[in-house]
Amino acid sequence: MVCDNPPVVLITMGEPAGVGPELCVKFLSNQHFKDFVPWVIGDADVLRSAARAVGVTCDLPVRALTAGGDLGQLEAGDRQRPLLLHLPVAGFDGLQVMPGRFNRHSGRASFGYVQAATRAALAGYVAAICTGPIQKEAWHLAGIDYPGHTELLAKMTSADRTCMMLTSDEITCSLVTTHVGLRDVAELLSVESIVGTIELSAAALRARLGRAPRFSVCGLNPHAGEAGQFGHGEEERIIVPAIEQARRLGHQLQGPLAPDTAFLPFRRAQTDGYICMYHDQGLIPLKTLAFDQAVNITLGLPIVRTSVDHGTALDIAWQGRANLSSFRLAVQRAAELAVSS
Amino acid sequence: MVCDNPPVVLITMGEPAGVGPELCVKFLSNQHFKDFVPWVIGDADVLRSAARAVGVTCDLPVRALTAGGDLGQLEAGDRQRPLLLHLPVAGFDGLQVMPGRFNRHSGRASFGYVQAATRAALAGYVAAICTGPIQKEAWHLAGIDYPGHTELLAKMTSADRTCMMLTSDEITCSLVTTHVGLRDVAELLSVESIVGTIELSAAALRARLGRAPRFSVCGLNPHAGEAGQFGHGEEERIIVPAIEQARRLGHQLQGPLAPDTAFLPFRRAQTDGYICMYHDQGLIPLKTLAFDQAVNITLGLPIVRTSVDHGTALDIAWQGRANLSSFRLAVQRAAELAVSS
Repeated sequence: MVCDNPPVVLITMGEPAGVGPELCVKFLSNQHFKDFVPWVIGDADVLRSAARAVGVTCDLPVRALTAGGDLGQLEAGDRQRPLLLHLPVAGFDGLQVMPGRFNRHSGRASFGYVQAATRAALAGYVAAICTGPIQKEAWHLAGIDYPGHTELLAKMTSADRTCMMLTSDEITCSLVTTHVGLRDVAELLSVESIVGTIELSAAALRARLGRAPRFSVCGLNPHAGEAGQFGHGEEERIIVPAIEQARRLGHQLQGPLAPDTAFLPFRRAQTDGYICMYHDQGLIPLKTLAFDQAVNITLGLPIVRTSVDHGTALDIAWQGRANLSSFRLAVQRAAELAVSS
Repeated sequence: MVCDNPPVVLITMGEPAGVGPELCVKFLSNQHFKDFVPWVIGDADVLRSAARAVGVTCDLPVRALTAGGDLGQLEAGDRQRPLLLHLPVAGFDGLQVMPGRFNRHSGRASFGYVQAATRAALAGYVAAICTGPIQKEAWHLAGIDYPGHTELLAKMTSADRTCMMLTSDEITCSLVTTHVGLRDVAELLSVESIVGTIELSAAALRARLGRAPRFSVCGLNPHAGEAGQFGHGEEERIIVPAIEQARRLGHQLQGPLAPDTAFLPFRRAQTDGYICMYHDQGLIPLKTLAFDQAVNITLGLPIVRTSVDHGTALDIAWQGRANLSSFRLAVQRAAELAVSS
C-alpha cells in the first residue's frame, strides 16, 4: 500500500449522462486542495464536454489508462496532483453522450469506473474512493445484475456484511435493509442483521466522536406496533431482542421508537445514530432535514468508500444547476476516513 | 340541527391518564373565545385534578350528563358559553386516576366520550368535534376492538370511505392506509383506495384554497421502484393507473415520486397535498417538519372531526409540560371547517 500524505481520493465520474461529470469538473476547477489529492476516473471527452457545457475551466493533466484500469502505470509525481484518469470502455464513446440520455453503453462505462476504482483501492494505489451517482437502470440495460454500488463493492471486496450509513451534521441514519421492496422488508429483518448494523455503525461513530455513540432504534410498524396491535409482532420478536443483545455487547440504545416521532428535535438531540429498518424510514427524514448536506458511507468494507446522497438528476444534467454541497462533503469525508482508519 | 353563531365545538378529554385533561384545562383557562364556543366532554373530577396539578384555574360551569350523554337536556343559554360536560362511565372513578397509568376503566371512559360526542354531532347539537388523544392499548384492555378514533367514527356515522389527512402550514399529507402493519400495506393498496383518498383530499383542499389543489403522489418502494427493479411492481400496477384515473377526473397530480425526495423544499413548494401510501411515509416528514403544528382531520364523515397530531404522552401527563399548539390549532380548524362545510 502506498501511504500518501496528503491521501489520494479517487472519485468515480458516475453515469456519463447525469450530473456526475458536471460535479466532477466543478469540484476540480473551484478548489485548491490541501488535505487530499483528488483524482477523477471517467471519460476525458465527457468531462471536457461537461466543463464546456457548464462554463468552467478544467485543464488538469489527463492520464489514459489501459482497459483494465491499472493505476500502477502512473508516475510517482502524479500522486501529488489532481488528475483526470481516462478509462476506455468497449462500446462507449464519450463524444456521443447526450445529457439526460443514458443507455447500456453509459451503464457499462459507469460500472467500469467503479470496478477500476475498487481495484485501485484494494491494491492500495488510492486511500479512499468517492463514487458519483450511477443510473441503476443503465446498469440493468447493460446486463449488470448488481442493484447498486454497495452490492458490487461488497462482492468485489468479499465483505461479509456491509451497512449503508448516511450522515450529516443534523442526523445520521444506518439502514438495516436498503434497495428492496417495502413488502419484503419485514421478512428480511433479523436479530443478526440489526445487531450487525449497530456494530458497524458503532465502530464508525466511535471513531468520529471519540466516545461511545448513543443510538435510537426505530420500530417497523406504525407506533412501533403499539404493543403488538399493528403488524406481525416484528418489534417484540426481532427488534427488542436485537436491542437487548446489542446492550449486552455494551452499546447504548433506546427503542424501538415509534418511527413518526423518532426524528423530533428532542430525540435528535439525544441521538448520535439512528438504526432504521428500511430505506425510506431513514432517508425521508434525512433528506427532509439535510438534503445536499449528507454523505453516504459504506461501512464494513476493507476500503474507504463514500458517495453523494443524491441520484443522477438527469433532468438538470450539464446545466450548471447541480448543487455541489453533498459531492464536496463526500470527498472530504472520504479523505478524513482514509486518514483516521 | 341547531345552527349556532358562533358554532359549538365539542372537545373530548381523551385518555384520562394522558395529557388530554391537562390540555383541555389549559386551553379553556387561557383563552377568550370569539369565533367558537368550546365544550369539553369528559370527567369533571379528572379535569379539576389536572387543573390543580398544572396550576391553572378552570372554574367553568359543569353540566352533568346522563349515562347516555344526551345533550338535549342542556338549556339554550348554555350554547353561548364554554362548558364542562361530565359524563358518568360505569366502573370509572375520576378521583382514582393517576397520571400516566391507564387501565381498562380509563379506556372505557375515553371511548364513552367519543361515542357521546359523535352522537351529539350526528344529532346536530354541536357543529364539530375535536378529539383529545386516546390510549389505543386502554381501549384494547377494555375489550374495545376499534384500532382508533377513525374506525369508530366511520362505523358510527356509516361512512363509506374515510381518509386521515394531517395538515399544517408547512405540509399536508393524506394517508391511503393507516394503522396496519408495514408488511400488509402493499396488498391493501388499490386503484380505488388511492383515487378515493385523492377525491376526499381534493374536496377538502379545494374548500380551503378556493382553487383546485396540486397533489404529489408518493411511490411505495425505494426510488418509487426504480422502473420496477425494487418491489413487486406496485407503482406500475396500482399507483400509475390510480394517477391516470384521477387525472381523467380532473385532478392535478405528479408522481409516483421517489418517497425520499418527495418532501424536499422545491417539491413542497409545488404541492398542496401529498398522497402517502402508508402511515409513516406521511407522518415522518410531517412530524419532522411541523410537530405540534399539525392537525389531523378525518375526511369522508358526515360530521366535522379534527384531532391533535400527537398521542397521550403518558410520561409527561399532568406536569404542565405538554405543548398546547396542536390542540389549539385542532379546535380552531374544527370551528373553521364547521362554518365552511
